[in-house]
Amino acid sequence: MKKTENIIKKAKLVSGRILRAKTNQKNKALLAMADALQANSKRILNANRIDVDAAKGVISDVMIDRLMLDEKRIKAMADGIRQVADLPDPVGRILSTHTLPNGLVVEKTSVPFGVIGIIYESRPNVTSDAAALAIKSGNACVLRIGKEAFNSAFAIVEAMREGLKTARLPAEGVSLIEDTSRNSAEILMKADGYIDLLIPRGGKQLINSCKQNATVPCILTGTGICHIYIDKSADIDKALKIVENAKMSRPSVCNAAEVCIVHKDIAQDFLPKLKKLLTDPEREHICSFLLDDASSKIIDGGQASYYDYDVEFLDYKLAIRIVNDVKEAVEHISLHSTNHSESIISEDKKAIKYFTTNVDSSAVYVNASTRFTDGGEFGLGCEMGISTQKLHARGPMGLEELNTYKYIVTGNGQIR
Amino acid sequence: MKKTENIIKKAKLVSGRILRAKTNQKNKALLAMADALQANSKRILNANRIDVDAAKGVISDVMIDRLMLDEKRIKAMADGIRQVADLPDPVGRILSTHTLPNGLVVEKTSVPFGVIGIIYESRPNVTSDAAALAIKSGNACVLRIGKEAFNSAFAIVEAMREGLKTARLPAEGVSLIEDTSRNSAEILMKADGYIDLLIPRGGKQLINSCKQNATVPCILTGTGICHIYIDKSADIDKALKIVENAKMSRPSVCNAAEVCIVHKDIAQDFLPKLKKLLTDPEREHICSFLLDDASSKIIDGGQASYYDYDVEFLDYKLAIRIVNDVKEAVEHISLHSTNHSESIISEDKKAIKYFTTNVDSSAVYVNASTRFTDGGEFGLGCEMGISTQKLHARGPMGLEELNTYKYIVTGNGQIR
Repeated sequence: MKKTENIIKKAKLVSGRILRAKTNQKNKALLAMADALQANSKRILNANRIDVDAAKGVISDVMIDRLMLDEKRIKAMADGIRQVADLPDPVGRILSTHTLPNGLVVEKTSVPFGVIGIIYESRPNVTSDAAALAIKSGNACVLRIGKEAFNSAFAIVEAMREGLKTARLPAEGVSLIEDTSRNSAEILMKADGYIDLLIPRGGKQLINSCKQNATVPCILTGTGICHIYIDKSADIDKALKIVENAKMSRPSVCNAAEVCIVHKDIAQDFLPKLKKLLTDPEREHICSFLLDDASSKIIDGGQASYYDYDVEFLDYKLAIRIVNDVKEAVEHISLHSTNHSESIISEDKKAIKYFTTNVDSSAVYVNASTRFTDGGEFGLGCEMGISTQKLHARGPMGLEELNTYKYIVTGNGQIR
Repeated sequence: MKKTENIIKKAKLVSGRILRAKTNQKNKALLAMADALQANSKRILNANRIDVDAAKGVISDVMIDRLMLDEKRIKAMADGIRQVADLPDPVGRILSTHTLPNGLVVEKTSVPFGVIGIIYESRPNVTSDAAALAIKSGNACVLRIGKEAFNSAFAIVEAMREGLKTARLPAEGVSLIEDTSRNSAEILMKADGYIDLLIPRGGKQLINSCKQNATVPCILTGTGICHIYIDKSADIDKALKIVENAKMSRPSVCNAAEVCIVHKDIAQDFLPKLKKLLTDPEREHICSFLLDDASSKIIDGGQASYYDYDVEFLDYKLAIRIVNDVKEAVEHISLHSTNHSESIISEDKKAIKYFTTNVDSSAVYVNASTRFTDGGEFGLGCEMGISTQKLHARGPMGLEELNTYKYIVTGNGQIR
């Protein structure tokens, strides 16, 4: 097993070559990486079978499904890389330029971070996604996957490295940490001077561990306790359609809604309709409800404790809270939100303005589903995760968010 | 003494009112803060006298000079606040807007962080600077000054709070931590959910402590080990003038140069001239030199150890290193720089391109002094410190850097 520290150091060592690579060289590498993935699909599938066999009975069926690869999924991964090749190169954009009175030209220029570390769980496809985004944005990357998917990721990385070499870029531009114990994650978190940006993608425990332990710069991609507030002025049809979509279309993802906050004046009309819609026996899945005192007088359901509003259910389960006005809705959100995505359903400009100004989340929606918080949906063409912090990047992170900037200041002898 | 936790919580509680304040209300508050500073100058000077008397014999004369206030300095502080009132409001800028195919309008909008914590040392004027920048950028602020300047800062904050109240903004928008022990700094570093951004301004020890201990988002404002590389193609007159300025004009600041790297082909000509210029007996201050082996064969001076290149001298002292080419110069900088500011003096486009591409610092200069890395000089109109990290803000931070963004997404019933 290669030492984690050595893998990280090698990545730093070659990062300059990735940083300096021209757009067409990076694109050539990406296309070669995609081709190599498909050319090595047999090897990757064999490795994946080892992972899946070992995981059976250990992790849930949903997780096994996420872990499992087939020819179609490998092709999708390769096509994903090809799509990244088509995106504009974020490196070297002049973000602003101005000439000072003394003639100095100050250019704020986008540049890669250097080495990006990504800690993620057992989804082999994240391996190729993350690597493609790192390379395109001029960064070397060090990947650290959960042990359940290690063999799959190793085979995928080996194939991608072939592609890098084909385009005369260093194979170490994409590296996989071989130690899957907690130790290697901690080494990544403290690799000052080597890891320029660390992106933990995973559960609460991983994110918290980064928060507590990391000394390298991190972007936390958090959980999503997303709220939809139904204002008294709401169009009830829109409201029903949006809550149905936000809760039921894919409850396992972070942009799904967990809580519906309802204005008291509309609750009597809205809640029975919502209940009927989400518990229709014709549905494939039925939603269960967790109710506060006020809403339990209108519809049936379980009783919500204060702490139920702090849970990301990731399930066909919706907590309900009735409030007196938009102000109280915003207060509830401030206390319980993870600052991911919230939506107001309202036809009242004043309530909308109050909500969008005071809700402190990455994405604040007006009359739309929270499910749109996604790099692809936002038109970024890709996504390295969804930041729930305020520093540097907020919400879906695409290629531009994987760059920082520096000032290049050109003069002809100016002194101060 | 008020409990640190309570001060922080109160700041969070009122931060919404600062966030929502309109530009003219914030400006009114700033002007009232400036007026109140001058109106209370007697009280502030009395408090300052207590600090200065206590500090005599305890801290250096340079530090005492930084600590000392007089009518003129108070007026300068007030004028500084008035200048911030004149700057454009950074809040609510639409950074980008696009309409998705489904009609959703996605607006990336600049918003305040919420509560900014600032830990700084014994410079009372930073109190008013930082508070003005925080308020103008829509943030509440919690200030934590070193104990030597506490009485001065307390009187300054009391005056500014009067100003806030005059403009009907909450006094707790600007707060001073009353506990000046290390404990309060640590509470700030771990105030998750209350401190939205922490800016430590101080020495290596403070910055390191933040790096190790902070769980809230931080922007590290680091030390400056700044390099000037004299390429073989350099215009020697420019080079001399620039090194003289970068080293000698104000060696105590972070954008002063500490190291001069010289191409071997020009060293024989350049170094004796530099030595003559910087040790001219007519000068008020004489520069001393720390030399590597190669340069010690050309001029006289002390011997530089490897570790001397990792010291921010903040003094009339310059380390010299001779290299074979620009590549070796960049390697030296990668190993020893604090990523603050570096400059190349060269007339060779290729060398310049190599240097600006590969030097990974906040500001990279071509034929100019490193001393320009400063919010005022960069045309930001102000400065909250100089970031040496890559996340969020790099180099001088003005009002825009004290904002984050959120996506406001407006629809009419869109679902995914």
